[in-house]
Amino acid sequence: MSIHEQLIRIFEDQPQQFLSGEELSTKLNCSRTAIWKHIERLRQEGYEFEAVSRKGYRLTSKPEKLDVQAIQNRLETKVLGRTMFYYDEVDSTQIVARERIAQGAEEGTLVVAELQTAGRGRLGRKWHSPKGKGLWMSLVLKPRIPLHFTPQLTLLIAVALCRSLRQSTGLPIGIKWPNDLLIEGKKISGILLESSAEDENLHYVVAGIGIGVNLTQEDYPDDELRAKATSLAIESGKKWDRTEILCQFLKELELVYDLYHEQGFGPIKLLWEALSVSLHRTITCHTPRGQAVGYAVGIDDSGALSVRLPDGSMTLWYSGDIELSPATHDSL
Amino acid sequence: MSIHEQLIRIFEDQPQQFLSGEELSTKLNCSRTAIWKHIERLRQEGYEFEAVSRKGYRLTSKPEKLDVQAIQNRLETKVLGRTMFYYDEVDSTQIVARERIAQGAEEGTLVVAELQTAGRGRLGRKWHSPKGKGLWMSLVLKPRIPLHFTPQLTLLIAVALCRSLRQSTGLPIGIKWPNDLLIEGKKISGILLESSAEDENLHYVVAGIGIGVNLTQEDYPDDELRAKATSLAIESGKKWDRTEILCQFLKELELVYDLYHEQGFGPIKLLWEALSVSLHRTITCHTPRGQAVGYAVGIDDSGALSVRLPDGSMTLWYSGDIELSPATHDSL
Repeated sequence: MSIHEQLIRIFEDQPQQFLSGEELSTKLNCSRTAIWKHIERLRQEGYEFEAVSRKGYRLTSKPEKLDVQAIQNRLETKVLGRTMFYYDEVDSTQIVARERIAQGAEEGTLVVAELQTAGRGRLGRKWHSPKGKGLWMSLVLKPRIPLHFTPQLTLLIAVALCRSLRQSTGLPIGIKWPNDLLIEGKKISGILLESSAEDENLHYVVAGIGIGVNLTQEDYPDDELRAKATSLAIESGKKWDRTEILCQFLKELELVYDLYHEQGFGPIKLLWEALSVSLHRTITCHTPRGQAVGYAVGIDDSGALSVRLPDGSMTLWYSGDIELSPATHDSL
Repeated sequence: MSIHEQLIRIFEDQPQQFLSGEELSTKLNCSRTAIWKHIERLRQEGYEFEAVSRKGYRLTSKPEKLDVQAIQNRLETKVLGRTMFYYDEVDSTQIVARERIAQGAEEGTLVVAELQTAGRGRLGRKWHSPKGKGLWMSLVLKPRIPLHFTPQLTLLIAVALCRSLRQSTGLPIGIKWPNDLLIEGKKISGILLESSAEDENLHYVVAGIGIGVNLTQEDYPDDELRAKATSLAIESGKKWDRTEILCQFLKELELVYDLYHEQGFGPIKLLWEALSVSLHRTITCHTPRGQAVGYAVGIDDSGALSVRLPDGSMTLWYSGDIELSPATHDSL
């Protein structure tokens, strides 16, 4: 057993007890500085301690862990999440999911990790995913659609996630084109879709989904992120059961996904437009090649944003980062 | 040096000479059966021997090999093929190209092999690619287009290949939707596009291209393939310079690819329709879910085939294998 694990064991065996640094360093045969470093690492992993001078440290809370069996018992889906790989820590659930696909993973396979050390968001950005505080996952889908309908899946997943989180928490969550979920302008969740195809045949999609469930202000590494991102706990003032949030999302996604296979993009488009915070307002689109301003009118069947430019002409935006102007319902 | 290589050396050192099996088995210190097996293997690799009883074997022709330096000297492109990886033998140039991309290969990188041991065609089919007789290659492209325009690239490459082969050989080559090249109903070339994307952003495309250049009837393993496939040599009655064919193709592709980036799919669509043998006739489409018959009218901007069904309604076919009916210009 490592010093790290021994330390956890000692604290867990004596709940509510203060243990001094000296006592611990004697027990574990290491320096007090080493003990202090281990405590800091445990804090990063989600353990919480009360530290009182001359008394020492007292364990006040342990990181919550997902229980695969409890999830399977609670799950109401036929396919999605029925095969599940759970990790304490991975570099990125997307990488693990792609490896699982190479080994034959089927539709619905879910990879969940308590901590991602190299989580990625859209456009190669780093995605902050601390231990036990959110849902960091990748879902394998193999939809029977031609390649060029793939962008519809991004919108479909955003719709299902938005609907399920609203149902679970009652919070006023909206979709920012194409696939961020926001509360009052702050990001609560991100979706990233990696696809692989041969000619017109989509082989698979790996949907990376991150949900900030129980993060507190202290869980964000800097003010910049704190200003842009939030969590269900911060917005509601209470902690949420991640198992419940996950199972509710998978249930809703399976419903919407089945609807899509039966009736096509039509109903998904209506749902997306109803939940969107990007429409009927002036927006700025940032792309690697520059930026443009326009008034967002709707989306088309390819998932592109239909935009009226300042000169009155209509155009389609296929990708990019959009910024919402504060005023709504203005028109260019 | 292996027995195989020693045998090649001995034959090459004595051109026009008959060498008996006994002589060879003594020189190489192996059985006459082993010599016979090595000769058979050399034949499969493209060496040709005259065998006369009591006299032995005489090397009459060696497999032609591509010369990377000669190709680079002859090439008139700026980007395509300027970085080139040449292999005597690989499993599949597609696999090698994907590995090269993981190591940072840029747009235009070309992987060429004299022989593929596990060459693949569309829909996972085996692709027959014997040594030194064709052009078996994979080209890395990183076009600046949204994901859902990817199918247009398949048509673009078919257009460039068809045009360049017509220019090089004068043969009446046409395009069968979506991306097979035919002469008189027999396949002369196949194209396979593997794509990888993140959300709407296409990361890369690997275009697998096989051209039957100098295959003879004997190079096809069975009558079934002989009935369906042909080569430039079989159709024209003469051998072709593979370097010339390759350089002409890359030059034409770069032209068409640049045109596409400047003017979009419009001009490519017109070129494709002009070269197509699939339009204005009744066709049968075979998909994993069954088959359908219709009259092919044109293609749309997504590369889908626009088809009039027997009941008069119009539909779009996005993928599948089509079979051309013998009669042309009939209408349902």
